[in-house]
Amino acid sequence: MTEYDGTDFVGFQRQKNGRSVQQVLEEVLEKIYGRFVTLHGCSRTDAGVHARRHISHVDVPFRIMQDKIPLAMNALLPDDVAVRKAAEVTSQFHARFGSCGKEYVYRISNAATRPAMDRRFAAHVPGYLDIDRMKAAAGVFEGEHDFSAFCAKSGLHVNPIREVRSVCVDTNDASNLIEIRVNGKSFLYNMVRIIAGTIVYAGQSKITPEEIFELFQSHNRRNAGKTMPAKGLTLEDVFYQEDPFALI
Amino acid sequence: MTEYDGTDFVGFQRQKNGRSVQQVLEEVLEKIYGRFVTLHGCSRTDAGVHARRHISHVDVPFRIMQDKIPLAMNALLPDDVAVRKAAEVTSQFHARFGSCGKEYVYRISNAATRPAMDRRFAAHVPGYLDIDRMKAAAGVFEGEHDFSAFCAKSGLHVNPIREVRSVCVDTNDASNLIEIRVNGKSFLYNMVRIIAGTIVYAGQSKITPEEIFELFQSHNRRNAGKTMPAKGLTLEDVFYQEDPFALI
Repeated sequence: MTEYDGTDFVGFQRQKNGRSVQQVLEEVLEKIYGRFVTLHGCSRTDAGVHARRHISHVDVPFRIMQDKIPLAMNALLPDDVAVRKAAEVTSQFHARFGSCGKEYVYRISNAATRPAMDRRFAAHVPGYLDIDRMKAAAGVFEGEHDFSAFCAKSGLHVNPIREVRSVCVDTNDASNLIEIRVNGKSFLYNMVRIIAGTIVYAGQSKITPEEIFELFQSHNRRNAGKTMPAKGLTLEDVFYQEDPFALI
Repeated sequence: MTEYDGTDFVGFQRQKNGRSVQQVLEEVLEKIYGRFVTLHGCSRTDAGVHARRHISHVDVPFRIMQDKIPLAMNALLPDDVAVRKAAEVTSQFHARFGSCGKEYVYRISNAATRPAMDRRFAAHVPGYLDIDRMKAAAGVFEGEHDFSAFCAKSGLHVNPIREVRSVCVDTNDASNLIEIRVNGKSFLYNMVRIIAGTIVYAGQSKITPEEIFELFQSHNRRNAGKTMPAKGLTLEDVFYQEDPFALI
């Protein structure tokens, strides 16, 4: 289980140009195991997106006590990424294909002026946002729908049907941030950031729940809200039928 | 009112060597007002300490609409500092001498492995911490005491008596951090970080409330807890008899 501040990464997945989370993890694994091993991540997060609990699996050449792995890796990793837990799993376990759900939170700093302390993990949306309208809009996204109108590059996806289990809008009293929490089995490209942008439109009274409902029918990305900036998005959790960390 | 991420600052106060919050604010004020103006801050925070609501006052050569000042300054400031509000005050107002209290929060990430997302704003304390023991220890600090045993360089202070109004220990469910919230009129050098270190000792069963009580009598810094790292400390609020932002 890996946590990272995505600010200075090109995303989770290894890319030719730029520093990815997969790359820094694989480099450290190579130092520890003495040869290159491929990491299989649960999700390719975009450049700038963060993760509190990102799960990967890896086939290793020899056994190291599972509770030693995080400390050994963290000593070698840069400070914006940390391995929080490691567990031995059966060969059936697959971090990506075995996942039965994910939870993302989109964080918004809704003040007249930009934030300093929260600048890495929240998008700044100045101006009045009506929380009740945002909550009403959030409800429309729940359930199984064709999310074509709420994804980038819809041609990428053979099947645009996704099940969103819950979308909750709350104000976090401690941080004073608005949090949009989205839970679902899997998501289309940029889908959570476009849902967040559409809920922000609702908060600005630019769109009603009825109009969002109609957007689903239109299959047209153009009328939905903006794709919100990556920095506000955090993968908070990944779920499996059997929790790989149940025994530790 | 200024917010800053203290990670890359030598502290609030201007210093010969290194980047201070006062310096970057004064440089921007000089650009806006066309001549140098001295900023008077409510508190000199140490290198690495953060602030969510730090108040300064300044005598300016001409009037600019108070709601334009934060936006004008933020456009010129680096992204780890932001002016959140500005208000016109009477010539009697003094950010430092007029303050009747301050609230600090010390944040601790209490997991086996180091944090990545919270690494700038929380100190990592691995190993078991008994929250109930920490709460009991916190209570001993409340009230008016001679805090000589809980300050660095006690020779600096003519009068080591300080009134601490409250010390609360809580686990923040959202962030999973332990927060030690300290409210008082004013503080000795490093006093909040040493109080936090002593409360951590209590959580590790290294010191009892009775022993902390005896420490007050001893006036001896050596037996108190460690001075916790600056990164975990945030100045959350500053209080005045009359809120300078009451009208905006």
